[in-house]
Amino acid sequence: MAELILTTFDWVPQMPRGFVRDLRVRWALEEAGLPYRVEGVPFRDRGPEHFLHQPFGQVPWLTDGELSIFESGAILLHLGERSKALMPGDPRGRAEVSQWLFAALNSVEMAVLPWALFLFLGDTSETPGHKLLHDFVQARLRHMDGVLENREWLAGAFSIADILMADVLRLVEHFDGLQTYPACSAYVARATARPAFRKAHADQLAHFAAAD
Amino acid sequence: MAELILTTFDWVPQMPRGFVRDLRVRWALEEAGLPYRVEGVPFRDRGPEHFLHQPFGQVPWLTDGELSIFESGAILLHLGERSKALMPGDPRGRAEVSQWLFAALNSVEMAVLPWALFLFLGDTSETPGHKLLHDFVQARLRHMDGVLENREWLAGAFSIADILMADVLRLVEHFDGLQTYPACSAYVARATARPAFRKAHADQLAHFAAAD
Repeated sequence: MAELILTTFDWVPQMPRGFVRDLRVRWALEEAGLPYRVEGVPFRDRGPEHFLHQPFGQVPWLTDGELSIFESGAILLHLGERSKALMPGDPRGRAEVSQWLFAALNSVEMAVLPWALFLFLGDTSETPGHKLLHDFVQARLRHMDGVLENREWLAGAFSIADILMADVLRLVEHFDGLQTYPACSAYVARATARPAFRKAHADQLAHFAAAD
Repeated sequence: MAELILTTFDWVPQMPRGFVRDLRVRWALEEAGLPYRVEGVPFRDRGPEHFLHQPFGQVPWLTDGELSIFESGAILLHLGERSKALMPGDPRGRAEVSQWLFAALNSVEMAVLPWALFLFLGDTSETPGHKLLHDFVQARLRHMDGVLENREWLAGAFSIADILMADVLRLVEHFDGLQTYPACSAYVARATARPAFRKAHADQLAHFAAAD
């Protein structure tokens, strides 16, 4: 089996540390017990070679033998097909994981990320657009809280869908947005208590700190 | 093979018509030549049964025999596994499609949708958050324009990745946002000239008009 290589930045500023998306891939690889190596690309000078692997100049990407895959969602699905610890093999189980994986990215993160950008900038303007964005996030969190009241993990057993959903909700918690959503908050605590998350998180922090 | 049933709203207001996400699924089904039936659920009164199929009270979902799948991204991947017209079967081809499919939703639409919400509301405030959102969209479009200068479709042949990317960029064009991105604009024209898109679009408009 080919060696797996995870590529991320060689260094990033303090703020995003612990949230750079290589974390999602590290977490999945640790859950699956798949051996891998981490490589760094320059954060400051992103050359043509970088854009060949990641067309937006972002990270991460995964090299699996002849394959080079970008987008953390696509990478996690690819790893899910290699390990039953990340995604079941039967059609129903796969469909369950897949729908929640996309829900994390395209229904929840799509609301949460722009909302977090405003908070990051300290922009508290109450314009109609900003207000709609706020309501959009609250509606998503309300529905997720209802879902998570009744289940430990999104698709039966723990899966890549939980890695993405917990990582997205972790960003909300970081900006104090889960205080009225106890089931979401408990879910984030449950997910981030897993040894695979803790190792992935510590490894990301150590990787960036080593370049300071 | 089980009958495919696509569920969408029974009616929506004028504004979102032509953009409701069942369009993405109709388009894929038409490209693949898979027979399907469309069912409507109430737009105004969304009951517990609706939330059982779609936890955010949105549409669409697809019923495929025993399976019920929500999230248009997950539905398209599911259909992609049923038809080579939507996604190739080899690992490299699948990975190519998968990364661009996630790029459409999680790198481009995640920037574009909140930007479009502000325009939809006529919110032209120049707050720091709104300005960052604008710059985020421009950066994504600039990179996409560079990618699309050099290729007809994202992953070799036309695929579900193009259905999602073209539908996302179509929203930008709707708000006059592609004028300085000629390759994106030509790509949207190329994709929406396909008979499968034209049928899917006409069918969605007819479906909602029938309930007026």
